[in-house]
Amino acid sequence: MAERLIEGNAVIGQSGGPTAVINASLVGVVEGLKVAGAGQAGNPIKRILGMRHAVRGLTEDRLVDLTDKDQDFLDALAATPSAGLGSTRDKPDAAYCERIFHACEKHDIRYFFYIGGNDSSDTCRIVNELADQHGYELRCFHVPKTVDNDLMVNDHTPGFPSAARFVAKAFMADSLDNASIPGVKINVVMGRHAGFLTAASALARTHDGDGPHLIYLPEKAFDTEDFVQQVARIYDRLGRCQIAVSEGVQDKDGVAITTKLFEGETDAHGNVQLSGTGALGDALSTLVKDGLKTASGAAPRVRADTFGYLQRCYPDASPIDQDEARRAGRYAAMIAAGGDMDGSVAILRTGKGYDGDAYKSELDRIDLTEVAAKTRHMDPEFFQGDHDVSQAFIDYCTPLVGELPKFPRL
Amino acid sequence: MAERLIEGNAVIGQSGGPTAVINASLVGVVEGLKVAGAGQAGNPIKRILGMRHAVRGLTEDRLVDLTDKDQDFLDALAATPSAGLGSTRDKPDAAYCERIFHACEKHDIRYFFYIGGNDSSDTCRIVNELADQHGYELRCFHVPKTVDNDLMVNDHTPGFPSAARFVAKAFMADSLDNASIPGVKINVVMGRHAGFLTAASALARTHDGDGPHLIYLPEKAFDTEDFVQQVARIYDRLGRCQIAVSEGVQDKDGVAITTKLFEGETDAHGNVQLSGTGALGDALSTLVKDGLKTASGAAPRVRADTFGYLQRCYPDASPIDQDEARRAGRYAAMIAAGGDMDGSVAILRTGKGYDGDAYKSELDRIDLTEVAAKTRHMDPEFFQGDHDVSQAFIDYCTPLVGELPKFPRL
Repeated sequence: MAERLIEGNAVIGQSGGPTAVINASLVGVVEGLKVAGAGQAGNPIKRILGMRHAVRGLTEDRLVDLTDKDQDFLDALAATPSAGLGSTRDKPDAAYCERIFHACEKHDIRYFFYIGGNDSSDTCRIVNELADQHGYELRCFHVPKTVDNDLMVNDHTPGFPSAARFVAKAFMADSLDNASIPGVKINVVMGRHAGFLTAASALARTHDGDGPHLIYLPEKAFDTEDFVQQVARIYDRLGRCQIAVSEGVQDKDGVAITTKLFEGETDAHGNVQLSGTGALGDALSTLVKDGLKTASGAAPRVRADTFGYLQRCYPDASPIDQDEARRAGRYAAMIAAGGDMDGSVAILRTGKGYDGDAYKSELDRIDLTEVAAKTRHMDPEFFQGDHDVSQAFIDYCTPLVGELPKFPRL
Repeated sequence: MAERLIEGNAVIGQSGGPTAVINASLVGVVEGLKVAGAGQAGNPIKRILGMRHAVRGLTEDRLVDLTDKDQDFLDALAATPSAGLGSTRDKPDAAYCERIFHACEKHDIRYFFYIGGNDSSDTCRIVNELADQHGYELRCFHVPKTVDNDLMVNDHTPGFPSAARFVAKAFMADSLDNASIPGVKINVVMGRHAGFLTAASALARTHDGDGPHLIYLPEKAFDTEDFVQQVARIYDRLGRCQIAVSEGVQDKDGVAITTKLFEGETDAHGNVQLSGTGALGDALSTLVKDGLKTASGAAPRVRADTFGYLQRCYPDASPIDQDEARRAGRYAAMIAAGGDMDGSVAILRTGKGYDGDAYKSELDRIDLTEVAAKTRHMDPEFFQGDHDVSQAFIDYCTPLVGELPKFPRL
């Protein structure tokens, strides 16, 4: 079908929050295009370009040529966390998308690959429609990425398994630390709207009494009084309590707890900052200190850690995640080279990974509109009451994160 | 010399903040005592006991018998982070030390091993003196441990290399993250009085422009105005700035910056809490946001992460640290079984680990008074100006942390 391809360059961008494997997807796209003959004499796909800091760099003519990078470099880059091309948090409006489209014309770009989350797939969709309206043949492809795991259709999203691996290992070690010097320990985990990453803390449990003892997800209404009571209940029973809290927890009216605890402390744009601050953890700490003091007369040791950006960049990726992220990139290149006009790549699970069924996944092309600007939430069967996750979630998540250490108890 | 040993039990405790390798030292003591014949018929050392939560458990008769643990279990325990026996933050006063001594009498303990930092070695020293005063033969040995690396005589302290490894890897990945979405990033690192762990962030640098761009240590006076100016200078030059700040930074009068920024917000005991809160990072964030806004008119993206307890417990220990921690435990058992009356174990470096000289270390017995209740600070040649560390520090630290990943740049 390659004869149907229009002549021009390909461009690849990495958008939104970086992950431990977003470079694997970048390398996958490059590899897939090279397998299809990109850059070789007579091939319709001429050069493989990278956008510096995503669409922002594209509109500022900041492009890097990736066509001739050798395999050793690509292999090393694929194992490097964060976005090697640079990323951006820009959310293009209509005028910005026009500029993106004109930059594509200017640089003779006919193949547009964008690695990112639901906002990025929406940018991809809009640029695609703009090109259509202008009668300019531009083929737009989205490659999934997000530690939040909140893309529709996908069983899971590249970036999530590695972040979940970090969270599980961190909770495992932190629970041992909390058992060693008992007290209340609150750990705040990333995830503005979807609780998957916070839920992954449950994978840390291997022995009776292991934390996390309470798990608070954005999908379940958070009540500060109930929170203190639950902590007191566990603390009275075990003499300690390890808690996983999503940074995005909200009350029954959908108001972020961070907003409620810091009324009037939003930034200049009116946005509540969730990551890159310890404020939520510290406020919950104070609630527990005050609450447990009132109940028992003595203040327990209460500490809060906010795991922060290490969750998405710590260099200990899940092997399955590395592999799938790279395959997703290659798959996008393959459907582009195969003549598809646009689309996103979805990861589908074809082997459960438990009950004797080995883990397997396949990739599929889906329409951009199926993922663009939509948010997936935790499946209802993944919850266990209001403060925990179910065995179904543990079965779902365990095969993704790779082997976890096993620690004996004295 | 075994015939000179008095008959009785041995007891081992783990005290203070846990580390990734404090269990390796515990296992080392057990192994060393078993090699010396402990628990075998006719051997003067009868049972090997563990204190639950250090001296607190000892005084409450909470002891666990370690004599018959098999090698597979011991190997697995040695690779487990945190303190398997449990630890305590209790700082025994005279009356408490009396109770410790009486617990030793009660349980026929004649060999007392205490794994911990300078406070723990002081407890060891006091108990030793008490036993002397009572004419009770008790042989007390201290095994070094602290992520702060602040024990005298020692080249470095078990626990530090693994924590330094985590800090170096975290800064490496976080610098890539910061380069990907530029802004100011402040990372707060453990270390109340000594800057070694914060200084280890410098090991993250492998390419020009890599962070950390500024390193703030407790040994150098911290001036908030100068801080903002330095950050502005780097930010203007690079468009980003990654900063390492010790949780223990203090002003020229020795007042902790945390205290100054949160006047009146100390806890019920008047102590300023440093770990387990994001407050210092958030306050420095606000300083930078306000300062850079005033200077340039636009507020840059400023984020702060506080690495927290993961620094001391994340399960990715330095192989050298694992090995030395276990050897230090064995050495303490060996000098006890060899007839020594008391002492601490010190790690001495006998091979530099750079300039073609392979890294090597040896252990030596030193007097308890040489480490008890004393704090080592960064050596003067480890500083480079006021906001960085020298090549001498990098040479010193690099061999300790094990192999670090290498990440290429696009």
